[in-house]
Amino acid sequence: MYLPVLFSILLVISSVHTFQYTELAQYVDSHQEDYVEALRDWVAIESDSSNILRRPDLHRMMETAAQKLRLMGGAVDLVDIGEQELPDGQMLALPKVVTAQFGNDSSKHTVCVYGHVDVQPAKREDGWATDPYNLTDVRGNLYGRGASDNKAPVLAWIHAVEAYQALNMELPVNVKFVIEGMEETGSNGLDAMIVAQRDTFFSDVDYIVISDCGWLSRRPALTYGTRGNCYFFAEVEGPKQDLHSGVYGGAVIEPMTDLIGILDTLISPSGKILIPGIREAVAPLTDEEWKMYQDIQFDVDNYKSRVGVNELMYNNKVDLLAHVWRYPTVSIHGIEGAFSDAGSKTVIPAKVTAKFSIRQVPNMEPAMVKKQVTDYLHSVFAKRKSPNRLKVTMVIGAKPWLADTRHPLYEAGKAAVKRVFDMDPDLIREGGTIPIARTFQDVTGKSIIMMPIGGFDDGLHSQNEKMSRYNYIEGTKLFITYLNEVSQIKKQTSV
Amino acid sequence: MYLPVLFSILLVISSVHTFQYTELAQYVDSHQEDYVEALRDWVAIESDSSNILRRPDLHRMMETAAQKLRLMGGAVDLVDIGEQELPDGQMLALPKVVTAQFGNDSSKHTVCVYGHVDVQPAKREDGWATDPYNLTDVRGNLYGRGASDNKAPVLAWIHAVEAYQALNMELPVNVKFVIEGMEETGSNGLDAMIVAQRDTFFSDVDYIVISDCGWLSRRPALTYGTRGNCYFFAEVEGPKQDLHSGVYGGAVIEPMTDLIGILDTLISPSGKILIPGIREAVAPLTDEEWKMYQDIQFDVDNYKSRVGVNELMYNNKVDLLAHVWRYPTVSIHGIEGAFSDAGSKTVIPAKVTAKFSIRQVPNMEPAMVKKQVTDYLHSVFAKRKSPNRLKVTMVIGAKPWLADTRHPLYEAGKAAVKRVFDMDPDLIREGGTIPIARTFQDVTGKSIIMMPIGGFDDGLHSQNEKMSRYNYIEGTKLFITYLNEVSQIKKQTSV
Repeated sequence: MYLPVLFSILLVISSVHTFQYTELAQYVDSHQEDYVEALRDWVAIESDSSNILRRPDLHRMMETAAQKLRLMGGAVDLVDIGEQELPDGQMLALPKVVTAQFGNDSSKHTVCVYGHVDVQPAKREDGWATDPYNLTDVRGNLYGRGASDNKAPVLAWIHAVEAYQALNMELPVNVKFVIEGMEETGSNGLDAMIVAQRDTFFSDVDYIVISDCGWLSRRPALTYGTRGNCYFFAEVEGPKQDLHSGVYGGAVIEPMTDLIGILDTLISPSGKILIPGIREAVAPLTDEEWKMYQDIQFDVDNYKSRVGVNELMYNNKVDLLAHVWRYPTVSIHGIEGAFSDAGSKTVIPAKVTAKFSIRQVPNMEPAMVKKQVTDYLHSVFAKRKSPNRLKVTMVIGAKPWLADTRHPLYEAGKAAVKRVFDMDPDLIREGGTIPIARTFQDVTGKSIIMMPIGGFDDGLHSQNEKMSRYNYIEGTKLFITYLNEVSQIKKQTSV
Repeated sequence: MYLPVLFSILLVISSVHTFQYTELAQYVDSHQEDYVEALRDWVAIESDSSNILRRPDLHRMMETAAQKLRLMGGAVDLVDIGEQELPDGQMLALPKVVTAQFGNDSSKHTVCVYGHVDVQPAKREDGWATDPYNLTDVRGNLYGRGASDNKAPVLAWIHAVEAYQALNMELPVNVKFVIEGMEETGSNGLDAMIVAQRDTFFSDVDYIVISDCGWLSRRPALTYGTRGNCYFFAEVEGPKQDLHSGVYGGAVIEPMTDLIGILDTLISPSGKILIPGIREAVAPLTDEEWKMYQDIQFDVDNYKSRVGVNELMYNNKVDLLAHVWRYPTVSIHGIEGAFSDAGSKTVIPAKVTAKFSIRQVPNMEPAMVKKQVTDYLHSVFAKRKSPNRLKVTMVIGAKPWLADTRHPLYEAGKAAVKRVFDMDPDLIREGGTIPIARTFQDVTGKSIIMMPIGGFDDGLHSQNEKMSRYNYIEGTKLFITYLNEVSQIKKQTSV
């Protein structure tokens, strides 16, 4: 009886530890069309979290994601995270957060995948070549709002688990999901949910993986930092209603003139932030960082031509990367309440609200940025001696995040990229904000990796967002492989 | 036979010259509901001339006006005035101009009434309490886009003629109509039409009456001047498409920052126009003017509370009236292409177009203003050393207009106001632009009067535009009376 028993034990170990990459990769390739259809279904749901009129679609999106995970046998919860307060004081239910669990083997590591299924606004008339909510394949690129940010990556993770299941292969690690629906407007309610579930859902999580970002070039990348985001509304209110500019022009101090005047004091033409205290708070660039940036594969001319400009704020690689990754910037997004349609309208808008944001970096703090911006704008406004009323609010205050690239989680990432793409990844930072990374770090104390599969030219937040079939499908293989690589960390650490 | 013949002749003279005001006024009063229904039908047509998608409605509006005049037996033409070129180079048919004629008696004066039936944009969500295209009566005020500007005044003129017809009274003067559909966007095509018909349709016109304006207070008014309007688009274009502000913020010189920067150089916080040459061109205020302004019934505090502000650009009557009537001003209306919805969007808009206008006055010239503004903005923009591209275009260039208040046409107006309202009118100017006044003056050489019936608080171009039943109905009586008063001018001049 001894030998057969040993044999059985070896068999079990084998079934756990032998990673059958070829079979899994073939399975993925042969299910490509199913994956595209799944993405089409998700893109069709206009889950715009910034538009309160789309909230029913957003709820439907969360339920759709939950149902997909349920059908795969996951232990799924739709976690109520409460309500948000609208500017007018009304309360609106937040989209529930989907959590799911696959596997519960305490001898394995537990990887928690974070993603979001809400999207930025998109309208055909913004300049989309196709209907943003009808996934359209043009020469291997899948165009649609949310395709890359972040619906395809979330689906790729789900499909990675599904592939193991379909081939009756045991998952090398336990996999958990946290899928939210408010990422694009600042992950309202998610922080509290993570705090609340720190000792329950998150207690056995070892590593957190986020794929809400993109590569820097055609070379795969691992991301080790993001900028934060302080998003402001600056509202100037004057007359009680819009006025005819012929009838009242010259009589009233126009809110729009005041707003333009204070916006013009935020940043200089050469990109210098003029708000006192902001630049002083930024961590200085180290020699080591400078060296890392030097080594990154990045073609400034190609970047220019992709953006469609002749000149950038900085035209050498290191300065450019540093200014999108580790220096703050101010962007003015637009003005609500003014005339914004085509044509000519002779109106004096009564109340205008500028939307602008400051991408923040270590060692800036959102609470301090809020104070600096608010104080500064009020002081600038006071100098105008306007009878209009200024109100400055910070509606998003998301912190930056920075990881240690020497952590085993990153070594596992490098190995997975090597296996699937046969090359080393770039180690990059992300100019955008994935606030949840910082929250996970602060609240759970777990290690985090960002593993993007989005292309460098996916057009996140802009017209004609896309995800290429190549990135979607090879990305699914990357995730499958990564789960296995992470299971190896366990062996290493237990050795 | 001698006496009966004389008697007959006297009877004829009597039927021509006896103005039966009481009967006409009673007729108007008893048809009030019909007049309101007619206005409701017209307001229901969204004849927004600035929105090319509404062009079919605008064409329908012109046909509706023409049909009403045809049914009254007028000699009606729908005059083709050609096409307009859109910013993208496409051509779009302009709404036809309606001309009509009632009476052709060369022994009488011919009065030509000008009006327009296009409207400014309006959306419920702009802050309207009611559907802007569903005329709604709230305590005697008729709310709807275009109610006061200019559909009710046009209808009141039509109803004035109709009242004479219904009572079988001969019109004391020949009446012509010129009704256009592009007034709100600069009367595109009308100037050429007036020039073309100067020696045909306009050859027998003696006087031109325009009722496209409003009173200054509850006292009826006659208007003797308007400001012009130079409306500009300033477009700054950078990247080839909108960009994610996280990913690209810090890398690109943002068009929005450039645009805000140049807009901020147009006007000072205290209302001083900073564009070189503009202020120097303005005719100085004369002592006589100053005296006239002093005598006008105008309550600055009431004006403030109506506008809903604590402080105006100027807080004394003369300065205030002077700055809305006879000094230029700059209004920034809004920005197209930037984020303008509710909520937060982290976008770097690729192309943004500011809309602003300069109300101009004697002795400014639109061609010179165009050059001054364009040169100035380009020089300011050049100092920024931005790689983005600036394009400045003047899309409307409408001249100011000024009449002589001692002309018999104004004396007739004073008499008509006295009869209907039992008070003397204020003699006022209009801060807004009725470009056609200047064109009529320049092209036809005829005398022009502006006879408003709109209320001082009608909310032209803003939310909740309205026309009161009182002004609409008494205004109809005023027009009826005025036609008779104008016929008296003839007697005076022939004496």
